[in-house]
Amino acid sequence: MKRNAEISIIPLGGRGEIGNNMILIEYNDEILILDCGIMFPTEDMLGIDLVMPDISYLIENKDRIKAMLISHGHEDHIGAIPYFLREISNIPIYGTRLTLGMIKKKLEEHHLMGSTELRQISAGQEISLDPFKIKFVKVNHSIPDAVAMGIKTPSGTILYTGDFKFDQTPINEQPTDFNGLTQLGEEGVLALLSDSTNAEQKGYSVSERVVNDTINSIFEKADGRIIVATFSSHLDRLQQIINAAYETDRKIAISGRSMIANTKIAKDLGYLNFPDDMLLEIRKINNLPDHKIVYLMTGSQGETMASLTRIARGDHRQINLHKGDTVLLSATPIPGNERSVGETINQLFEKGAKVIYGRELDVHVSGHAYQEELKMMLNMTKPKYFIPVHGEYRHLYHHSLLAKDVGIPEDNIFIAKNGSRLKVSEKNAYFASPVSTGKILIDGSGIGDVGNIVLRDRRILSEHGIIIVVITIESGTGKVLAGPDIISRGFVYMKESQELIEEAKNRLNIVLKECQEKNITDWSKLKTKLKDPLRDFIYNETRRNPMIMPIIMEVPNK
Amino acid sequence: MKRNAEISIIPLGGRGEIGNNMILIEYNDEILILDCGIMFPTEDMLGIDLVMPDISYLIENKDRIKAMLISHGHEDHIGAIPYFLREISNIPIYGTRLTLGMIKKKLEEHHLMGSTELRQISAGQEISLDPFKIKFVKVNHSIPDAVAMGIKTPSGTILYTGDFKFDQTPINEQPTDFNGLTQLGEEGVLALLSDSTNAEQKGYSVSERVVNDTINSIFEKADGRIIVATFSSHLDRLQQIINAAYETDRKIAISGRSMIANTKIAKDLGYLNFPDDMLLEIRKINNLPDHKIVYLMTGSQGETMASLTRIARGDHRQINLHKGDTVLLSATPIPGNERSVGETINQLFEKGAKVIYGRELDVHVSGHAYQEELKMMLNMTKPKYFIPVHGEYRHLYHHSLLAKDVGIPEDNIFIAKNGSRLKVSEKNAYFASPVSTGKILIDGSGIGDVGNIVLRDRRILSEHGIIIVVITIESGTGKVLAGPDIISRGFVYMKESQELIEEAKNRLNIVLKECQEKNITDWSKLKTKLKDPLRDFIYNETRRNPMIMPIIMEVPNK
Repeated sequence: MKRNAEISIIPLGGRGEIGNNMILIEYNDEILILDCGIMFPTEDMLGIDLVMPDISYLIENKDRIKAMLISHGHEDHIGAIPYFLREISNIPIYGTRLTLGMIKKKLEEHHLMGSTELRQISAGQEISLDPFKIKFVKVNHSIPDAVAMGIKTPSGTILYTGDFKFDQTPINEQPTDFNGLTQLGEEGVLALLSDSTNAEQKGYSVSERVVNDTINSIFEKADGRIIVATFSSHLDRLQQIINAAYETDRKIAISGRSMIANTKIAKDLGYLNFPDDMLLEIRKINNLPDHKIVYLMTGSQGETMASLTRIARGDHRQINLHKGDTVLLSATPIPGNERSVGETINQLFEKGAKVIYGRELDVHVSGHAYQEELKMMLNMTKPKYFIPVHGEYRHLYHHSLLAKDVGIPEDNIFIAKNGSRLKVSEKNAYFASPVSTGKILIDGSGIGDVGNIVLRDRRILSEHGIIIVVITIESGTGKVLAGPDIISRGFVYMKESQELIEEAKNRLNIVLKECQEKNITDWSKLKTKLKDPLRDFIYNETRRNPMIMPIIMEVPNK
Repeated sequence: MKRNAEISIIPLGGRGEIGNNMILIEYNDEILILDCGIMFPTEDMLGIDLVMPDISYLIENKDRIKAMLISHGHEDHIGAIPYFLREISNIPIYGTRLTLGMIKKKLEEHHLMGSTELRQISAGQEISLDPFKIKFVKVNHSIPDAVAMGIKTPSGTILYTGDFKFDQTPINEQPTDFNGLTQLGEEGVLALLSDSTNAEQKGYSVSERVVNDTINSIFEKADGRIIVATFSSHLDRLQQIINAAYETDRKIAISGRSMIANTKIAKDLGYLNFPDDMLLEIRKINNLPDHKIVYLMTGSQGETMASLTRIARGDHRQINLHKGDTVLLSATPIPGNERSVGETINQLFEKGAKVIYGRELDVHVSGHAYQEELKMMLNMTKPKYFIPVHGEYRHLYHHSLLAKDVGIPEDNIFIAKNGSRLKVSEKNAYFASPVSTGKILIDGSGIGDVGNIVLRDRRILSEHGIIIVVITIESGTGKVLAGPDIISRGFVYMKESQELIEEAKNRLNIVLKECQEKNITDWSKLKTKLKDPLRDFIYNETRRNPMIMPIIMEVPNK
């Protein structure tokens, strides 16, 4: 049983990236899955909708999977569940009440209800999934009902924080269960897996309560309509906005599919509290005087189709901005969104709105622990080994420095890669042979059918478009029956480049003539013979490298 | 002469955007051009290299152009000069010594030397270009030899600040000529055009000297090699790095074409000072011990092909990162570059480098005035009318609030659009009929041959690629001789979607059969008949919208 005395920790995603959070804990050939998140595509993933971790390792080891445990209801922790269930069903999913509420919504959207069992747990509870015992500990985050997990095995306890912060004055809920954490520390934590998102931020994160004060004063000052954009999953923030509206005797209309869905779930489950008559439909609220109106919506990230972005562009069907409106962006741009958010802000100003945004104004605080809190987590739980998770390499790196600061020996700190298999036991810890993993790209309804070659083609097409050369030849003789025709898209205006195209045709005709004299009738040969000179010609004339695609049709020789 | 008593101020670019700075001053039908800059393309301008203002108004009014005056040598103020000169040559260009040095380099690269006359001026000087008199006033910025311009006309003086900050302890040069500014204020400024870039930033900008201290302490601490990335045009910064290297007895090697070119110009003109033997070629410096080496390079913005980016990726031919190297990013990311810069930082950390970056560390300060300096500029020059320039709408808007704060009447503040014609005189100021302008996209060697349609096609291609359907028919009869063939690029792996393609072909064949029965031989009709059902089929199967392009070849009926 020696081998089995070791615990394997395998991050399938979330290391070296923000999102894709998914970690495996293996003991005695039993696998626990911690979270199942997606990430949003980076600029170079052209046309991609979502990204999820490669779960082929889990597919191969289906039968060994014991359960999936979810820390909280954000996309980067639950988003991949529907795609997971299409491959592997009937894995019981454990989560708190709100978290399961969010998951249920997803499964309904994907027509996957009944494909597995959702088992509700609550903070403070300990459940047994032999050989594991799991203790759930309440933590604060930017969504209620978030938990850390103490995963107890005969060989020791692995503590996974999920996303967390320490908020002494949270909205609508209790502070982090410090006792629960220190108790695990007392019993002994073999390894700590802790959230690194803000490992570069000095000091302590700011309490959600601070935002409360800002929002209230903004609502008190505003005499026109108020438009608030924030994350649809940020229920604490939504509650504060609802409270402020209530205090200033305003009604609320919600715009945006996800915002409407999430507020409904949260209200039904009791995580949002407000009198029913406070919520009006947009067309109804539009009849009220301006000082009675609050619009609550998505678009804080400048997403093209989100409500605020459409209002800023002036193409929202039901809401037209007018002078005197106050617009509050209660969120900070996620890296990569700065420019689109800036664009939205410019458009809002131009339409005469008073726009309130920016960190320094306390209109948003982070849901992730800062450096002092991260050290506190380490000091409260006193782990033997430390593995920073959730973050780009720079965040993991800085988190590891913090661990050193509080006295974790350098040799006991491990920065894992996606797919790394870290084996830990009281005796020692080391990296064993990794499992194969990677990113799966989701484009439309296709999962994983778009890869590097397709993306490379999309990049070339996006930069200088495509030039298509079509020729019909007589099979056997290779006699040209029609063409060469040249068609381009995304290259230049055809009409403005008639000469260029004509000259290109001439050159192709010369090449074709040569080929016939040498009677080259082999397609592939012919294609390269046409492609290369055309590419060079186009580049010399335009300094551009469009994709060049010769197509040869063959007509049977009569 | 009544009409002529008015001065027209016409921004052709730089309003509502960062870059493209170009402003026209018209008086008595004489035109002065202030700056001639480019801007870098936004994400939605796929494949575009540069953007410049539409100068068709100037082309139409060639003969009225008196001269071009340049405030300083940055791309967003001189970058469009070569493209301007291709359309309009022999317009004398006025600038300070360094500014002309930068321009000369450009003209040489574009083989445009001799296409016009470069006339050197110096700060403090006043020149006469009847009916204008222009007084040049020294200001601080992130490049030496920057000037503001007081443009004097019989109807009053227009003061254009260019880019500026007030630095009490600049590197290698004098502080802003406050006396020159206040003097213009005393004589009376009719209208002030002032830099709005940092109008959202509270307080005063930080002196370049502060960066000096940070850089020195970094150099003193570092025991390995030092790699510094910054803007190649930021000569003050380069001087500081050279000084720090000199103090710590290190040699310097420069990597990156623009960095090498700019340092050479600046050294030749005496704007960079260092003993010749301090500069070594990379292959030479690589033979020195680590603690003797400084690499100076571009890439502070994560630009794909820049030196630092290549080093981070591990594909720089001459420089391989190793543990113990210190990397200093002496610049903050321009909005839109955050993610690529972050990516570079992650890669540098992973290769074991000590990476130093981020505003809070004082490794970079802005070259543009903050709010208190902007107010000071207003108070020193006491303009009757105020026109904020250089900035997105949000910046212009906040700058106008500052003007109100210092007592400029709201009616005397004008936020102009690109192409607006603002007429000003002692009597009054108002917007007259605008001139036509816009953005010209430069792609490779093509200027303006890429527009919205081409960009839209590139966007569609970039998102889901292209599906091409080729058919050869017999002319007249419309009999199908070959095809339909289906080829795709950037859509999905062909091999993984054989079935999809086969099914698509079947559907096309059905459509073709119908067409022949109804004997539809008209190309365009046939194309739509093929296109629409295929689009629907592909979307239903994949939820994607690739560009669909039917091509029909016609072979003469024998």
